[in-house]
Amino acid sequence: MIENPRPQPGAVLPASRLLLFGATGDLAQRMLIPSLFALHAEGLIAPELRIVGTARSELDDEGFRQVAAKALETHLSADARNPDAIPGFLERLKYVPLDASRPESFSALSQPLGVEHDQPIAIYLSTAPSLFGSTIAGLKLAGLDGPNVRIGLEKPLGHDLASSAVINDAVAAAYPEERTFRIDHYLGKETVQNLLALRFGNRMFEPLWNAEAIEHVQITVSETVGLEGRVSYYDGVGALRDMVQNHMLQLLALVAMEPPARFGPRSVRDEKLKVLRSLRPIDRATVASHTVTGQYAEGAVGGRAVPGYIDELGRASNTETFVALKAHVDNWRWHGVPFYLRTGKRLPNRHSEIYIQFREVPHSIFGSRGAVLQSNKLLIRIQPEESIRLLVMAKEPGLDREGIRLREVPLDLSLTTAFAGFRRRIAYERLLLDLIEGDPTLFVRRDEVEAQWQWIDAIRDGWDAAHVVPRPYAAGTWGPSAAIALTERDGVTWHD
Amino acid sequence: MIENPRPQPGAVLPASRLLLFGATGDLAQRMLIPSLFALHAEGLIAPELRIVGTARSELDDEGFRQVAAKALETHLSADARNPDAIPGFLERLKYVPLDASRPESFSALSQPLGVEHDQPIAIYLSTAPSLFGSTIAGLKLAGLDGPNVRIGLEKPLGHDLASSAVINDAVAAAYPEERTFRIDHYLGKETVQNLLALRFGNRMFEPLWNAEAIEHVQITVSETVGLEGRVSYYDGVGALRDMVQNHMLQLLALVAMEPPARFGPRSVRDEKLKVLRSLRPIDRATVASHTVTGQYAEGAVGGRAVPGYIDELGRASNTETFVALKAHVDNWRWHGVPFYLRTGKRLPNRHSEIYIQFREVPHSIFGSRGAVLQSNKLLIRIQPEESIRLLVMAKEPGLDREGIRLREVPLDLSLTTAFAGFRRRIAYERLLLDLIEGDPTLFVRRDEVEAQWQWIDAIRDGWDAAHVVPRPYAAGTWGPSAAIALTERDGVTWHD
Repeated sequence: MIENPRPQPGAVLPASRLLLFGATGDLAQRMLIPSLFALHAEGLIAPELRIVGTARSELDDEGFRQVAAKALETHLSADARNPDAIPGFLERLKYVPLDASRPESFSALSQPLGVEHDQPIAIYLSTAPSLFGSTIAGLKLAGLDGPNVRIGLEKPLGHDLASSAVINDAVAAAYPEERTFRIDHYLGKETVQNLLALRFGNRMFEPLWNAEAIEHVQITVSETVGLEGRVSYYDGVGALRDMVQNHMLQLLALVAMEPPARFGPRSVRDEKLKVLRSLRPIDRATVASHTVTGQYAEGAVGGRAVPGYIDELGRASNTETFVALKAHVDNWRWHGVPFYLRTGKRLPNRHSEIYIQFREVPHSIFGSRGAVLQSNKLLIRIQPEESIRLLVMAKEPGLDREGIRLREVPLDLSLTTAFAGFRRRIAYERLLLDLIEGDPTLFVRRDEVEAQWQWIDAIRDGWDAAHVVPRPYAAGTWGPSAAIALTERDGVTWHD
Repeated sequence: MIENPRPQPGAVLPASRLLLFGATGDLAQRMLIPSLFALHAEGLIAPELRIVGTARSELDDEGFRQVAAKALETHLSADARNPDAIPGFLERLKYVPLDASRPESFSALSQPLGVEHDQPIAIYLSTAPSLFGSTIAGLKLAGLDGPNVRIGLEKPLGHDLASSAVINDAVAAAYPEERTFRIDHYLGKETVQNLLALRFGNRMFEPLWNAEAIEHVQITVSETVGLEGRVSYYDGVGALRDMVQNHMLQLLALVAMEPPARFGPRSVRDEKLKVLRSLRPIDRATVASHTVTGQYAEGAVGGRAVPGYIDELGRASNTETFVALKAHVDNWRWHGVPFYLRTGKRLPNRHSEIYIQFREVPHSIFGSRGAVLQSNKLLIRIQPEESIRLLVMAKEPGLDREGIRLREVPLDLSLTTAFAGFRRRIAYERLLLDLIEGDPTLFVRRDEVEAQWQWIDAIRDGWDAAHVVPRPYAAGTWGPSAAIALTERDGVTWHD
């Protein structure tokens, strides 16, 4: 707990007010309110922090507290429950009903946020793109754009480079880049941060982390769900923009980046940016050989028959629910190392993982008989469970007549087991705390977003030019067979 | 099972006769006979192989079979028991009583060994040094030195370079080097061979296996036993010659050697030899700063009071029961990397392990607060259990206000668990089978032995010149405190 922290000269003050847009929405109830409660219960946020919710609903403070209490009851995981802490948490909450399309109504926020006292304020904005302009205008009008105010932005921030520039320009008119916190919730995940810890907290990985030793990298984010509640958002967006543009390119950047000078916002993001800008463009000439799209048809997931995408949607659509890509980072470190990315809905299981396959030994001293040497592999599993597994060759016990017989065995680090006393946190806990405290290291900078969009837009342009139509795949399979062919042509097999 | 194997041109024929000297002795009963039985029970030796035991005792075949049956009953581990296989094994056994000091009596061996039929014969010799000359003479006299005969030699083969040369010359008069199999039973251990598998079956270790990435290496062979039954042998020999000269220098050579071109007798031993010859001499000038000797005094091991070495021996002695060394391999790969070796009796526990400590990261991106970075470590445990453990830094879950907090966590490979279906073998099973089959890869070549002695002799010369007297240490401790100081001066702590 910090009380009256004495600011360093030039230091960012922790916010004493958090303004939550969309406070009665789905994300707030499932993620944000439970996360804020966890931070409160552990004494990680200052006692003076007030949380001001806002949304269209005509609620008063008490009504919002009931909504929040219900959200905690419904969505708090068992190990985060702490009934004693609930009343204190609810006392932090205030509510101001607001019509985001009417900037002039935002003045209602001034008093509860203590604008006249120049309180440090963190704003969390998860607004429909159509309301962006008026929301920013309202915030300005209400004086919520002072030097002590920072703003966190939830996706989607546009659907291509141009539309994201419009949004970012609108934000930039009120908030300079250093106070703009673009959220990619993957960066709040423990294992994603662990990737940095592994790479740069250990001497042993860096000499292996390059084209000399690594043969290829796979990044998979698979979902078992279909369209479900996201009909209005997902169709027309598709897997490339929903998953690859943000989460998967961020994972790729973290895997591929040079060691930053320090774990701080400028160093880390400068290095990620260099990777994103080094991505070899996939354009009209290469889109056919480097990408595969798919759309799920009816099938079965987890033993349950499920309808196809078109049936769920109720109309025809060319939106891809699956995409597989072969990417390259054109720099010295990664010359000739493919990064295979794959994501989709209605796949056989739900997991996110980074799979790094090392090259074969340059020469087997064990001969060809009795010892088929598998390449080393490093597997970083992000969800559902968090684990790190290193696959190495070890001698099989026994008296083989033809020399030493080797077998692949796992060196396992279950983070769940190693850190058994620790509660598994929601990614938003980290991000909300960092937003409140003003540390943007784990948020995405505008230049990163734009480099991501630039790469994604070229792919979409290639698809459009070639009139690419997603290939159907049965729900419950690993996408269209062309996705298998994409890697197998290179002699690479997807790690399932 | 092989039956009538068709020999390759120039190939070595598997022995169809095994001649076992010291067949009624302790080593034979505890190790050799149980090992041979295991090979038999698994069909790893040809049905036609006959085992001819010899010793002083006046036994006939039946008497020897009773000795062997008793040995199996007493010493076979539970998972190697296989009562159905015992009669078949005992049928292989013959016995010839022999006085090794009377070469002319060796003619009794000719008939059971089928000398006139030029049977391929493997001899296993574990004879007192005083009987060496007459034993070799007897074998020659009996015609047991033909091109199809090879000989396995148990230690001790001399007590310094000169005396080992005498023995090796005597052997060489009858058997050329390629048919001389010097046993170092450590080379028969699974984990020792696994060290080769790890180093050369995996791409990921070689880039780390050098002075650039490794800070130092520790090799520990600790025993809890005292002098016990070895009074007549051990006193005057001491830890340096009993353990370091053979087992520990072999382990060091396997850790330090360059990749051999193949897992074969010439390549592997050439590379080990290069390491042994690159050991920086510890001489009169450096012996005081690079070695520590100790002798255990009374104390307690495993909660049991035990007497000191002098009390066990019954007379005064300057024999060291503990030695710690700081060695260097003077070549490009290992420039500036100390190899700390330590072995002793009456230490707190019994284990053999190789501990490789990597260097610190060159720069911590995580800053000094919240993240003390431990060096990576690779731990190869040879006994009592066999395991491989890699210690890495991982992110501790949680929302540290001062950046990412790291903690050391183990990546574990329990060979016992990974290979649960496999019986743990006696090291001699491997070595006896290789002797029978004629594969000398895991045996020690004369030039290796001599390089080992040369290095050891210089140390002993230094001790003699400086009148070094071993420092007393309480039984149940890790040797004299000077052994701690030996490494701590370099900022290194022994891994206990």
